[in-house]
Amino acid sequence: MEHETGKLMYNLTKDLFPICRSITGNGVRDTLKILQTIIPLKIIEIPTGKKVFDWTIPKEWNIRDAYILDTEGNKIVDFKKNNLHVVGYSIPIDTVLSLDELQKHLFSIEEQPEAIPYVTSYYKENWGFCISHNQRQTLKKGFYKVYIDSELKQGHLTYGELILPGKTTKEIFLSTYICHPSLANNELSGPVLTAFLAKWIQSLPREFTYRIIFIPETIGSIAYLSENLYSMKQNIVAGFNITCVADNKDYSFLPSRYGNTLADKVAQHVLKWRQPNYKTYSFLERGSDERQYCSPGIDLPVVSIMRTKYTEYPEYHTSLDNLDFISSEGFEGAFNIYKECIKILEKNAFYKTTVLGEPQLGKRGLYPSTSIKRSSDSVRTILNFLTYADGTNDLIDIADFIRLPALELIPIVDKLIYHELISKIF
Amino acid sequence: MEHETGKLMYNLTKDLFPICRSITGNGVRDTLKILQTIIPLKIIEIPTGKKVFDWTIPKEWNIRDAYILDTEGNKIVDFKKNNLHVVGYSIPIDTVLSLDELQKHLFSIEEQPEAIPYVTSYYKENWGFCISHNQRQTLKKGFYKVYIDSELKQGHLTYGELILPGKTTKEIFLSTYICHPSLANNELSGPVLTAFLAKWIQSLPREFTYRIIFIPETIGSIAYLSENLYSMKQNIVAGFNITCVADNKDYSFLPSRYGNTLADKVAQHVLKWRQPNYKTYSFLERGSDERQYCSPGIDLPVVSIMRTKYTEYPEYHTSLDNLDFISSEGFEGAFNIYKECIKILEKNAFYKTTVLGEPQLGKRGLYPSTSIKRSSDSVRTILNFLTYADGTNDLIDIADFIRLPALELIPIVDKLIYHELISKIF
Amino acid sequence: MEHETGKLMYNLTKDLFPICRSITGNGVRDTLKILQTIIPLKIIEIPTGKKVFDWTIPKEWNIRDAYILDTEGNKIVDFKKNNLHVVGYSIPIDTVLSLDELQKHLFSIEEQPEAIPYVTSYYKENWGFCISHNQRQTLKKGFYKVYIDSELKQGHLTYGELILPGKTTKEIFLSTYICHPSLANNELSGPVLTAFLAKWIQSLPREFTYRIIFIPETIGSIAYLSENLYSMKQNIVAGFNITCVADNKDYSFLPSRYGNTLADKVAQHVLKWRQPNYKTYSFLERGSDERQYCSPGIDLPVVSIMRTKYTEYPEYHTSLDNLDFISSEGFEGAFNIYKECIKILEKNAFYKTTVLGEPQLGKRGLYPSTSIKRSSDSVRTILNFLTYADGTNDLIDIADFIRLPALELIPIVDKLIYHELISKIF
Repeated sequence: MEHETGKLMYNLTKDLFPICRSITGNGVRDTLKILQTIIPLKIIEIPTGKKVFDWTIPKEWNIRDAYILDTEGNKIVDFKKNNLHVVGYSIPIDTVLSLDELQKHLFSIEEQPEAIPYVTSYYKENWGFCISHNQRQTLKKGFYKVYIDSELKQGHLTYGELILPGKTTKEIFLSTYICHPSLANNELSGPVLTAFLAKWIQSLPREFTYRIIFIPETIGSIAYLSENLYSMKQNIVAGFNITCVADNKDYSFLPSRYGNTLADKVAQHVLKWRQPNYKTYSFLERGSDERQYCSPGIDLPVVSIMRTKYTEYPEYHTSLDNLDFISSEGFEGAFNIYKECIKILEKNAFYKTTVLGEPQLGKRGLYPSTSIKRSSDSVRTILNFLTYADGTNDLIDIADFIRLPALELIPIVDKLIYHELISKIF
Repeated sequence: MEHETGKLMYNLTKDLFPICRSITGNGVRDTLKILQTIIPLKIIEIPTGKKVFDWTIPKEWNIRDAYILDTEGNKIVDFKKNNLHVVGYSIPIDTVLSLDELQKHLFSIEEQPEAIPYVTSYYKENWGFCISHNQRQTLKKGFYKVYIDSELKQGHLTYGELILPGKTTKEIFLSTYICHPSLANNELSGPVLTAFLAKWIQSLPREFTYRIIFIPETIGSIAYLSENLYSMKQNIVAGFNITCVADNKDYSFLPSRYGNTLADKVAQHVLKWRQPNYKTYSFLERGSDERQYCSPGIDLPVVSIMRTKYTEYPEYHTSLDNLDFISSEGFEGAFNIYKECIKILEKNAFYKTTVLGEPQLGKRGLYPSTSIKRSSDSVRTILNFLTYADGTNDLIDIADFIRLPALELIPIVDKLIYHELISKIF
Repeated sequence: MEHETGKLMYNLTKDLFPICRSITGNGVRDTLKILQTIIPLKIIEIPTGKKVFDWTIPKEWNIRDAYILDTEGNKIVDFKKNNLHVVGYSIPIDTVLSLDELQKHLFSIEEQPEAIPYVTSYYKENWGFCISHNQRQTLKKGFYKVYIDSELKQGHLTYGELILPGKTTKEIFLSTYICHPSLANNELSGPVLTAFLAKWIQSLPREFTYRIIFIPETIGSIAYLSENLYSMKQNIVAGFNITCVADNKDYSFLPSRYGNTLADKVAQHVLKWRQPNYKTYSFLERGSDERQYCSPGIDLPVVSIMRTKYTEYPEYHTSLDNLDFISSEGFEGAFNIYKECIKILEKNAFYKTTVLGEPQLGKRGLYPSTSIKRSSDSVRTILNFLTYADGTNDLIDIADFIRLPALELIPIVDKLIYHELISKIF
């Protein structure tokens, strides 16, 4: 079936879409519980007030209802219809205001008059409503009742973690975020694809250990790093911040701070061969948790492979980033790219020939016995592989030298190891 | 007032223009005395015969008068009208010659028939006159009286030096030459701009010590180096050989030997942002004191930022390089470029963030509290600065990474140091 | 006389052309004996069965006669007319076959119907005939007598070696192969040009020792390396695998494994100046003994400068690569390129100035005494040379910095050493 996994991912997104997530609160817990139906996530809670690097875990926010009534008592804005209508972290309110006063608490986008914007105010207490600009234009002079049934309390920041042990303690790291309400590409595509990737990784024999986390953006990665930095710096060899992976447009790549890590190498290698039109952004255009992972002193090898990058599509952070904006096909394409990265990383190592000069392939059945004009492609690939398997190049380097996708070299690696013509040096 | 400093520089050039300078002699002394009205130059004399590296300080040359009389007694060439008429370092002569004999001692430029060329013979005793090719064509057969009232004697090579101490003993080095007679862009623009730059530096609080010298070209820099090499190599972090800075055409850059010093970096950074059409020459096209400063074993970080480079304009080394060839505006433009280089160098250092992960800018009043779509430009600049402030990049590196002029980052550096979010590491 | 050496080389090729060479046997011995008329080659034999790295010296192969008779007794294929008719290393056969059975032992090229292909079966016992595709089309149903009077026996692999000692034990290495039957550009041009190059080198005063070998391809280089690896790795500073040097088309360059050795540097420097249209191949397109010389753990600095590269011309490995395909002019051009490489290598060293600052060239008669506008070209070349003679650049680096052919700098090196203005540091 075409895009089978893509369809499963799309369906899971549909289930998660209505939940009102934020950086803390029950929306995050509900989301993680649904993800636990796919993978055995461990759920961890960090208390409000805890110091994490330069930051402090904020109060936990929960919301039950919110609306605006006009003078005639019509519910003109209703949180239950779209959770984007309320500014994230709005404090409770129950009052009547003139239109002028209300305007100070309304957010809309003039250039996108149909869209409800996504707005938050995590670190300054405030309240507000987000509506389409079209609707805002229709508001008449008069008084409005505003009601937000929310709560800011000493509570917890909640996140999910899955550790899948491998042969070595060296780790591949996957991070994705679960702090946005009903937004599809940014963000739900991230945790959904990550969950399916984790499920597939679970089924693999693994060279590497996998550290996979589902966290609120920024404060979540800061909190996670502050608790795990030592072992992360010790072990992580490549990592991916997974977001915006389900629209069906071109591919994008956001490098690490200097663009020189193993994660950058494998991502660009795979994209170059599979999606040659992919767009590379500058690290200056970052905007997600690589802001923490790649910051000075943390310096983790983390990149993002995306479909259309956050902030680069008009639907971003509005009600237009909805279930119509994403597709099974979009999901499936990104899923395959990430799988190929992981397959290559699992086999990536520095290889070294065991004999001096070219080995005699013929006596091992690897060479056609009668030579005419020039040797065959497969023989050349073997000899080319051996030539750059000098202990200074890893699998991806060798693939780049010999101008082939690393994935295609994996059977050759296996064959040469079987014949003891190469050994893995580290 | 527009080009105010440019006008002051132009006026000082007018005062210095008539003096007959050479690599030694009273013309140099008179020039330095006038410069002392601007800055407290120390005047130093090195005696004839002193060994300086591979060279020897030559005899001191002075000239009082020189002319050619035709058979009718007309003074057809007169040193007092233009000091370029006499070949520099001409020995005294008082004789009568046939035109054929005289021709051997005449210099003119066929391709520039209006121009009097500038010619010298420092290291081989000789005499000669320089005239326009047009005039040369009018010379009739017959006899000419030639008279040069000059003197070559045991004396001194004279130069000026100004040391402006700063917080550190590390130095910025400025060098310019004072050995050409009435030539405006090459050379007077050099010492005049350097004097005004020195005056401005004097008024600054200084991180660096400044070593500023006014020397005859080649023999002067060799002599100065031979006396100061150890402390120069120890201390100089960036230097500029200042010449050809007052015409009003495009900007030029002459790099150091390998083009990889701090002086190269700051000069190219400023030119890239302020004068993007500037022309970069190869070090093979050098022709001034960088020949010494950047030679093997000396290896000082010295570059030149010029308007039109010496040898690249037809007026160069002729009577056409006069007060009409330069302008206040030309002076002012180059002055501003040099000032920006110095401002950046004063603040240039390796900076390092003091917190792990991004700091919480909001609690320090550096972040807008309600986020919509994407963060503001100034916040991004601060976060971008912090991201590359990892202790491996200096201010100019960071500016290049984040694609902004280093000058614009100086207020951010001050703000981040104030908030103790970065520290200067060296 | 034009192409004098080229003509001598062409004539020697004519003498060697008819001999039936293979990787072992009397054809090799006869070839080496003829080469001994030019240079004092030492002939060395390695016995069948000897282990050399991953390989074993094969049996020695000799052939006296071979033919195919049709049913009417016509000798339709005759080894004595063209030794390409027999598959190299064919075992003896004397039988009668149907056309269908014969076809399994026939080789021809459909796309080049006039050409007899060159085919071998060294490591799997077999027999066969090579004919033009046109002839193959004419073969009628019926029976054919096939006769090959060959012999595979315990014998030797034979090669030639010439060591020409120089002032140092450091070596320049020349390798060429002598294992192909009647084929002109690939291969005879190689050993012939190498022999003449060796003769010219013999006549030179030599800085370097020269190791020059004439070996069968692949098994020969493997055998030679396995016996000489230690001293080769110790001593060889640059080497050339000489092949395909006598056709008259454009020049080609095959680099070493990483393209970063002294051999790469000198070859590309000379080609850039003398044959700027030369084509650079990737090391992936290698196909001769650099496969061994540049393999991991061996890592010798060996490159090939060719006219048209093997496998890149349709005549390659067919009867069309004959004496008409090559020319005296083609030979001479390649000979001159190799000579220039060797002249430069002989003078190549790291040079360092002996004085600080520019030396005073005038007192050594190296500078015009009266300066007007700018210094002369030769003075600039001397000063430019001195500027980059800082002990970190070899002759070729300096030539590249100052944008001149290294060959033209050799007289300047001599002059500066004479005046003790530079010294050779290693």
